[in-house]
Amino acid sequence: MLRPVFSVLLVLLATSFAKYIPKSGKRIPQTLSRGWGDQLIWAQTYEEALYWSRSRNKPLMVLFHLEDCPHSQAFKKVFSDNNEIQKTLDEFFIVLNLVYETTDKHLSPDGQYVPRIIFVDPSMTVRADITGPYSNRMYAYEPGDIKLLISNMQRARKLLKSEL
Amino acid sequence: MLRPVFSVLLVLLATSFAKYIPKSGKRIPQTLSRGWGDQLIWAQTYEEALYWSRSRNKPLMVLFHLEDCPHSQAFKKVFSDNNEIQKTLDEFFIVLNLVYETTDKHLSPDGQYVPRIIFVDPSMTVRADITGPYSNRMYAYEPGDIKLLISNMQRARKLLKSEL
Repeated sequence: MLRPVFSVLLVLLATSFAKYIPKSGKRIPQTLSRGWGDQLIWAQTYEEALYWSRSRNKPLMVLFHLEDCPHSQAFKKVFSDNNEIQKTLDEFFIVLNLVYETTDKHLSPDGQYVPRIIFVDPSMTVRADITGPYSNRMYAYEPGDIKLLISNMQRARKLLKSEL
Repeated sequence: MLRPVFSVLLVLLATSFAKYIPKSGKRIPQTLSRGWGDQLIWAQTYEEALYWSRSRNKPLMVLFHLEDCPHSQAFKKVFSDNNEIQKTLDEFFIVLNLVYETTDKHLSPDGQYVPRIIFVDPSMTVRADITGPYSNRMYAYEPGDIKLLISNMQRARKLLKSEL
C-alpha cells in the first residue's frame, strides 16, 4: 500500500521543482544580440554603451532596427554573416542595437527610421558625417551596401581628438 | 588528380561559410533575463519599460543587480526558482533588470546599491512607499525576504489613480 503514496509524493516533488512555463508555451530566451551577432558583447542601454566607449576609447556603433521590418531582417542577414564586420566590431567597437528610440535627438539627425546606423566617437560626439549612400535617409543601409559600411567603420576608428 | 583540388575547394567553401568565432573562444549569447527568469519578456531599457507600463496599464518592476555580486546571485537563485513570482510577473507586470544605473534619480531614492527592487506605477510614479525590510537600504531584499516581495508585488498591482 506504500506504492501509490510514494508515486503521489514523487509527482508533487516534480511539480514543485518544475520551472515556470507560460500558458502560451515555452519561450526562447531573448538575446541582447537579437541576431545581429551572437558572438559580440552588446551593451544593453545607450548610457552603458557611452560609458564603455569613453572608458575603453573605442567608437560606438548604434544600430536601430525592428524585428518585424523586412529591410531590417534582410540587412541583419548579411551583417551577421559577414565575418569582417563581426571581427572588426568585436575587436575595435562598442556595439548597441535598439528596437526603441532613445531620448537623445542626436541619434536621429534626419529622423527616426530603421535600419539606421549611427557612429559615436569616444569623445561622445555623434559622427553625423559618417553616412550611407541614400540622401533622403542618410544613415540607412541595404544589403548591397556592406562594403560602404565596412569603409565607414574604418573611418569611425580614426578617432576625433577630444577637445576636453 | 581532381581529388586534391576538390578537397581544397571544400575546405575553402567551409571556411567562407563559417561564422565568426572570437579568438578567446565561442561565447554564450547574452540574454536580457540574465538568469532572473528566462521565460519572462524583459524590457531592454527604462524608456521602453515605461512605454510598455503606460500602454498596457501594468506596474513596472525594476531590478538593479550585478553579475559578480554574491548578494545579487543568491537572491537571483530564489527569485528565478519561485514560480509564484515568475507567474505573477509574467501575467501582471512589466519587468526590467539593469546592471547599470539610469540617469533618473527617482530610481535610487536612498542610494545606488544592489540588489535593489523599485516598483513604478503605470502613471510613471516611482512607488517609493513599497520597501523591503531593511531601514538602511530600503529597497534591498535577501533570499529570506521572498514572501515580503510577493506581498509587495500585490501592493504594486493596486494601481495609483492617475491624476492626469
